[in-house]
Amino acid sequence: MAGYDYDLFVIGGGSGGVRAARVAAALGKRVGIAEEYRFGGTCVIRGCVPKKLYVYASQFPEHFADAAGYGWTVPEASFNWRTLVANKDREISRLEAIYKKNVEGAGGETFHSRAMIVDPHVVHLLDDDRTVTADQILIATGGRPAAHPALPGHEHCIFSNEAFDLKELPKAIMIEGGGYIAVEFANIFHGLGVDTTLVYRGKEILSRFDMDLRRTLHETMEKKGIRILCHAVSESIRKRPDGRLDALLTTGQTLTVDQVMLAIGRIPNTQNMGLEGIGLEMTQAGAIKVDEYSRTNIDNIWAIGDVTNRVQLTPVAIHEAMCFVETAFKGNPTAPDHDTIATAVFSQPEIGTVGLSEDEAVKRFADVEIYRASFRPMRHTLSGRDEKMLMKLVVDGASRKVLGAHVLGPDAGEMAQLLGIPLKAGVTKDDFDRTMAVHPTAAEELVTMYKPTYRVKDGQRVQ
Amino acid sequence: MAGYDYDLFVIGGGSGGVRAARVAAALGKRVGIAEEYRFGGTCVIRGCVPKKLYVYASQFPEHFADAAGYGWTVPEASFNWRTLVANKDREISRLEAIYKKNVEGAGGETFHSRAMIVDPHVVHLLDDDRTVTADQILIATGGRPAAHPALPGHEHCIFSNEAFDLKELPKAIMIEGGGYIAVEFANIFHGLGVDTTLVYRGKEILSRFDMDLRRTLHETMEKKGIRILCHAVSESIRKRPDGRLDALLTTGQTLTVDQVMLAIGRIPNTQNMGLEGIGLEMTQAGAIKVDEYSRTNIDNIWAIGDVTNRVQLTPVAIHEAMCFVETAFKGNPTAPDHDTIATAVFSQPEIGTVGLSEDEAVKRFADVEIYRASFRPMRHTLSGRDEKMLMKLVVDGASRKVLGAHVLGPDAGEMAQLLGIPLKAGVTKDDFDRTMAVHPTAAEELVTMYKPTYRVKDGQRVQ
Repeated sequence: MAGYDYDLFVIGGGSGGVRAARVAAALGKRVGIAEEYRFGGTCVIRGCVPKKLYVYASQFPEHFADAAGYGWTVPEASFNWRTLVANKDREISRLEAIYKKNVEGAGGETFHSRAMIVDPHVVHLLDDDRTVTADQILIATGGRPAAHPALPGHEHCIFSNEAFDLKELPKAIMIEGGGYIAVEFANIFHGLGVDTTLVYRGKEILSRFDMDLRRTLHETMEKKGIRILCHAVSESIRKRPDGRLDALLTTGQTLTVDQVMLAIGRIPNTQNMGLEGIGLEMTQAGAIKVDEYSRTNIDNIWAIGDVTNRVQLTPVAIHEAMCFVETAFKGNPTAPDHDTIATAVFSQPEIGTVGLSEDEAVKRFADVEIYRASFRPMRHTLSGRDEKMLMKLVVDGASRKVLGAHVLGPDAGEMAQLLGIPLKAGVTKDDFDRTMAVHPTAAEELVTMYKPTYRVKDGQRVQ
Repeated sequence: MAGYDYDLFVIGGGSGGVRAARVAAALGKRVGIAEEYRFGGTCVIRGCVPKKLYVYASQFPEHFADAAGYGWTVPEASFNWRTLVANKDREISRLEAIYKKNVEGAGGETFHSRAMIVDPHVVHLLDDDRTVTADQILIATGGRPAAHPALPGHEHCIFSNEAFDLKELPKAIMIEGGGYIAVEFANIFHGLGVDTTLVYRGKEILSRFDMDLRRTLHETMEKKGIRILCHAVSESIRKRPDGRLDALLTTGQTLTVDQVMLAIGRIPNTQNMGLEGIGLEMTQAGAIKVDEYSRTNIDNIWAIGDVTNRVQLTPVAIHEAMCFVETAFKGNPTAPDHDTIATAVFSQPEIGTVGLSEDEAVKRFADVEIYRASFRPMRHTLSGRDEKMLMKLVVDGASRKVLGAHVLGPDAGEMAQLLGIPLKAGVTKDDFDRTMAVHPTAAEELVTMYKPTYRVKDGQRVQ
């Protein structure tokens, strides 16, 4: 190994790459890491972190409105988009510096450069016009929003990347897509006062989540004033003389808006980095093919995170990074565990979920018990806000194992995190029943649903 | 049993009594229940429910202030105490009606009357001047704030009961006590703009909670502007000519305030209801003595909830009610389970906790691992609020079992509820480690603390 400049060279300074670089360096390995844009990756720079900050920003008008029922008189507030963007920028710059410092503090070397693999042990750093060699190479280049070149007028559209940094807050926006990014941004823009329309080709937003939550979130968003058009696709985007955009939909409708944001999927960053040249195998979707230990078809090249298109979540990339270090540098081959991963959608209200949806469970189990509670959260008794919270447990009738837990409402993300622990441990509904309630909380509903709301036997719903 | 008017007569229409009455009636039993004040009991009428509504009310000023960092300009808001009280009254009246209706809907009979037990099978309803007989009697009369007749000027003081319904919001208040009621009200009054001083005889607020949380909450409350005086007791309360109160403390200080609220404990409601007359055994503290099935020394008389002074929490009273019905009416003797009960303190920030504190664990286990994280919650990166969140896991080094989980910060109550499930199920730290993080949440810290912050071996802290 002494023949190479580095024991490990990492391409991509996002959550996965930085974690791998830092931990390997801390083990005493000689580590280099190249990032062409900003350290922190999608999560820190234009994903999870700024998204959640914008969610907070967009929730204030509801706080102001809810205060009246509690005795407060709040004069009309005003919002300055540029202040939010500037304050967000300051925070992500702080985090970016921490990410970089963590790698360097552990003894790793950071490069601000695009990197190409020219040979299984050779990386060319384009911006530095320099070539380095490495024993092991880790690709952690992440993904990016899918473009839509077939859409006439697609050049007028923005993606989530640009949405964070718009010069002006639009008066009206159309967001195309039905995944969590589309849904989260629809809520953010609506909360900030933007007239918002969500356009989605499918029959209901947020496919793969529990249908009960999808429907209830849809209804709640519409009640807030977000327009949702399902079974609809934009056919063309035209710039009008006044600078606004006309979006023509397959439904025959035309939406006149200031911005059209496309959130129709994400694709792996595998282009123009020499992968074909060295014969690296990829999937049809353009992701890097890896085995269960995140190793590619080339023995000393590995890949983790969104670029492998397994589960596109920050904690999963970090977990894969930790497993990679165990496997490659600690003689302890460790396959990442992708089973029973809790997730959240920071819609308004939030979704928090772990395990199987009702529909999935019914396909796999002959006797499924559904426990379901729908109620007004206590804070909305005085606010008067007409929003229901939904909680649902999916239980295997035979083993009593809790297969899925689903929450729609305030703090659902926090709840999903902690529901993840018992579900991962494989506890039963009896363990839920044995747990004393904490009053008054919303989560107490999850431990006080003693009788099934209904059962599904061999696919048939029975009482 | 046909010789009695009722199969079951319940005295006290709080959470425990109402649950027992409703469930027994639903089984077809002839049930009567008497409540002298309002159905719903402490929890609904002057405890958990109005308390949490007031917590919500008192949090709005922080929302208004936090909005600035997110781009919002909020003109000064004004608060009307009477609006809050009136809206709270409307909500608890609604809940009161539901409680009553639930009993009646199940076939139970409700009485608005004080009740005395004149014989083990005979109850006298004073307000109705009527006597009824019952096969089984359940006492669920709850508790009330302890008075302090030895304090000169105690007649000028209020208790939590009155605090909910003050005619005017005081400009300054002194609250005496260090338990959760004192702490919660101190935060409520401070949040609503009242100059607030907490006076507590002990060395630190919230005894029996984890010391780390107690100290950090204390510091945070002081940072907000709440004055906290520990090792201090009031010696006398004097009414001044201007109508305000002078509280003289053992420290030599005099506090001039508009209200003094005593929250120095709660005592069981067992007086003047004939208990001595029928020879019912009580504890030195005046609570009703019961066996593990909630049965008193008189075979057909039972007691549940705060009047038994076991664990004074609404869900525990409800649980005891369910166990009582199993035992007395379903031939299934069931002892309430008082082990590993999650609880919350709705202080600001909140406390949520389940299982053993560090100090308790160290006494019982030879090798204790402490996992501890202290960080600024993401929402406060832009708000600029200088408040830390604290999370702590207490683990038995030998078995890896998680003995305690402690949270201080936003949503800690919701978190405690869900942490209660794995802790009750007895999961290990490895089960926590195996759980994938949900990003960005605060709770993810609880599943990503992979290495102990420190260990305590045989009572000695080691690294």
